[in-house]
Amino acid sequence: MANHEDLSGVFLALSDPTRREVIRILGAGPASVGELAQSFAMTLPSFMKHVHTLEGNGLIRSVKHGRVRTCSLDRDRLAVVGDWLDTQYRIWDARADRLDESAAEQEEV
Amino acid sequence: MANHEDLSGVFLALSDPTRREVIRILGAGPASVGELAQSFAMTLPSFMKHVHTLEGNGLIRSVKHGRVRTCSLDRDRLAVVGDWLDTQYRIWDARADRLDESAAEQEEV
Repeated sequence: MANHEDLSGVFLALSDPTRREVIRILGAGPASVGELAQSFAMTLPSFMKHVHTLEGNGLIRSVKHGRVRTCSLDRDRLAVVGDWLDTQYRIWDARADRLDESAAEQEEV
Repeated sequence: MANHEDLSGVFLALSDPTRREVIRILGAGPASVGELAQSFAMTLPSFMKHVHTLEGNGLIRSVKHGRVRTCSLDRDRLAVVGDWLDTQYRIWDARADRLDESAAEQEEV
């Protein structure tokens, strides 16, 4: 179960189009920072900040071999977003059930 | 289909525990700003900023009757998050299928 801070960090990491695009690209398989950076019109230091944000929030991992840093996705990490959404849906369903029960009781009166 | 800016705003709105808690509370039914504010240890102006962020990103709506502003959830709006997640899962599934095919081809050689 993700705590508040944890979940806030993941949502914040996902609030940027560059970081979402990195996740999309890595979904198709691991890639080096150099390969990833080619997809974005920004300097390498700017791009690295996004990589660090994603890694700091556990959404990606990176390993350095010699001069090459290879990034991969931590797919399980995105599950905290799905879990949060599911919780909201359960709250809405519970409300809908209460409204249905209330309507049925009204009809019985 | 949500555009980049749209989706970034929704993720940013969800990156704060107060705003997620407002969404959770409103999932159980509409509530006035005054009722909502009681759940949070902050000044009303600070709380109103969160309400405006949620409303600005379309996650909640509010209507004023006299002195009371009542907030309700726009449930469909959260679907952009679910849609984005589903897209990532489809990308991962496609990769898994490719890896399976590749493994099968290796075996045939």
